[in-house]
Amino acid sequence: MEGPINFTVLPRLARKTPTRILFLVMDGLGGCLGKGPTALQASKHPNLDALAARSALGRTIQVLDGITPGSGPGHLALFGYDPLTVDVGRGLLEALGVGADVGPGDVAIRGNLCTVDAEGRVVDRRAGRIPTSQARPLIRQLAEAIPAIDDVMVEFHAGLQHRFAVVLRGPELGPDVDDTDSGEIGRPILSAYARNGAAARTASIADQITRLAQETLAGREVANAVLLRGFAARPEILSYRELAKLSGVAIAAYPAYRGVARLLGMHIVDTIEPGCPVRDEVDALTDVWGDDYDFYFLHVKGTDSAGEDGDLARKAQVIEEVDEQLPRLLALEPDVIVVTGDHATPAPLRAHSWHGVPTILHGPWCEPDAETTFDEEACQRGRLGARLPATALLRLALANAGKLVKYGA
Amino acid sequence: MEGPINFTVLPRLARKTPTRILFLVMDGLGGCLGKGPTALQASKHPNLDALAARSALGRTIQVLDGITPGSGPGHLALFGYDPLTVDVGRGLLEALGVGADVGPGDVAIRGNLCTVDAEGRVVDRRAGRIPTSQARPLIRQLAEAIPAIDDVMVEFHAGLQHRFAVVLRGPELGPDVDDTDSGEIGRPILSAYARNGAAARTASIADQITRLAQETLAGREVANAVLLRGFAARPEILSYRELAKLSGVAIAAYPAYRGVARLLGMHIVDTIEPGCPVRDEVDALTDVWGDDYDFYFLHVKGTDSAGEDGDLARKAQVIEEVDEQLPRLLALEPDVIVVTGDHATPAPLRAHSWHGVPTILHGPWCEPDAETTFDEEACQRGRLGARLPATALLRLALANAGKLVKYGA
Repeated sequence: MEGPINFTVLPRLARKTPTRILFLVMDGLGGCLGKGPTALQASKHPNLDALAARSALGRTIQVLDGITPGSGPGHLALFGYDPLTVDVGRGLLEALGVGADVGPGDVAIRGNLCTVDAEGRVVDRRAGRIPTSQARPLIRQLAEAIPAIDDVMVEFHAGLQHRFAVVLRGPELGPDVDDTDSGEIGRPILSAYARNGAAARTASIADQITRLAQETLAGREVANAVLLRGFAARPEILSYRELAKLSGVAIAAYPAYRGVARLLGMHIVDTIEPGCPVRDEVDALTDVWGDDYDFYFLHVKGTDSAGEDGDLARKAQVIEEVDEQLPRLLALEPDVIVVTGDHATPAPLRAHSWHGVPTILHGPWCEPDAETTFDEEACQRGRLGARLPATALLRLALANAGKLVKYGA
Repeated sequence: MEGPINFTVLPRLARKTPTRILFLVMDGLGGCLGKGPTALQASKHPNLDALAARSALGRTIQVLDGITPGSGPGHLALFGYDPLTVDVGRGLLEALGVGADVGPGDVAIRGNLCTVDAEGRVVDRRAGRIPTSQARPLIRQLAEAIPAIDDVMVEFHAGLQHRFAVVLRGPELGPDVDDTDSGEIGRPILSAYARNGAAARTASIADQITRLAQETLAGREVANAVLLRGFAARPEILSYRELAKLSGVAIAAYPAYRGVARLLGMHIVDTIEPGCPVRDEVDALTDVWGDDYDFYFLHVKGTDSAGEDGDLARKAQVIEEVDEQLPRLLALEPDVIVVTGDHATPAPLRAHSWHGVPTILHGPWCEPDAETTFDEEACQRGRLGARLPATALLRLALANAGKLVKYGA
């Protein structure tokens, strides 16, 4: 919507101050009006309502009207980065998210342990969602069996359940390789297809990994092969410090969100576990709250998962869980608090969507609305507008926190 | 407003599905608030109101705030093409619209039969709006008399009344030539002026056409000369299929609108006549409704003509005529229906204008407004916003039709 204008403006105007900004991001928060109550409308959240009453409200568009954001683009937009300009592949987010280092020239890949039959056909793309504790030793085996191919170092990093990441490090690697995962069962693992000459070597190495992994895991009934997906390089991108002079910290349990935060140079709190209660995340936030950081990213996953399952009641419940914890967040006295999502995930749609994301902006100069509740309708009427580019939120937060000098004399 | 971003995003995200989208375009639909009732406000349109009540409303800006669109740019924007990037000359639209083929390197020109006096001064720029049936034989005479000039083929195509199109086909032709029509009466036909060297040959050929046409038509009292206007080349442009994987069909009676649709590769229904009742157009739409197409463009001209004549009552009447036919359109059960215009033509202004165009977006995930009427005021308050870039409409329609996958992982 706005393009990469923040890259031009913010580095010139941002200044370091002691004020603190908190972004409370409920993944997939938004719903679609006109399909019965949304999860925000179906839940009781008196604390969010009270905050909304002294805040400015709006609905954000992350990419463009009508375009449904994936998690990567959705978060990048929230953090002020134009997702149409910054191309971040999923392999990169997963790799960064599980703690891998990905440098310039490296290629990051997202992997699945999968199960193939005797003819090499994929019968389970996720190896029965093998528990993390069982998957880790297998990934260790792969790491030991495949430390390098030719002069390219191959790094394996275990993730959650069947998921892992691979980083290729060496000369002449290009990221433009199609997935080896056809996305269907009953079909063989695909050859890695290089979309251009620069990626030919990466594709050849990927095919060798596929073969060597099957040899290494041979004899197993499940989790006896790997699928490689989301080949990606690290884009040149301003860090959060370079963009806005912010020292950021992320409280996020899942790899992809940690990956986005790490890409921007935020510190990652790695003590929380996927599926943990929101209370644990707020505990972790409270622990790091202080002078080390001035930007706090708190990510709540449950709203999105419930939305994708079509479970409105559970989505509403997660919102209520967040609402219960809100007073603890407010007690930390952040100078600015933004409550929003990275995209909508309407439960009736059971998928991400393009609808505007309900958003609260609270800060000393936020111009509160007359609204007294937090839902899509109130946000639709709010001062921030019904179609606020998400990339504007960071600017508004910085402004409210007194972190931006004026533009021009 | 948005630039050519659709060209980047849509080819990646669009997918073929069986859902169908209908764009009902009332030319010049919008009015200007504060000048008495607009045509929408002055007319009774219970069916449009009922549709509005279960739809999202807004006002679209086709080019930029304050910029009045011509018919070409207005429609291009509606179809998702940034009119500031895609330069489509009127000559091209007229030529395509009357069925001519215009290839790369060709120059298309829009012509008028006109009347000059003994001294060669233009006394009627439209030859008394000579009836089509009388004009056709004259255009045939010209075609026979001027099949080529040097190594350039000259193709004549009759249009409506005094209008015709010329296509020049040959080497070294450039389109940047000024009209030979001064736009005034009592002045001579102008020499064709080449705005750059690449157009010098085109200008010279145009001057020869002017001369040869006058020789061919010599002795006639009216329609004894030609004016050449809107010299244009065919731009490189993604077809609708390339842009959005859409198979489009246009139900439009007038050449310029057929021309835009043909430029994008839509099929043209050529059985309807200019000035026919809206019912005939809906008949034609019903005939082609089915599995061959997933994008239907229905163009109603009468609203614009009435607006340009300053005839509010007639404009209101055309809206009522459309309203009567709306149930037949809805009975076809389009998955998504957009009701809009290509620009405003406020009757008090008697001309196209820059004001936001009242727009209805109806689809399964459109988030209906609380409004229960279809007019500029309701659309101003609507969810789509009072200044929605018209180029966003296609994306919203595609999204509602389930034709877009998400952006990024």
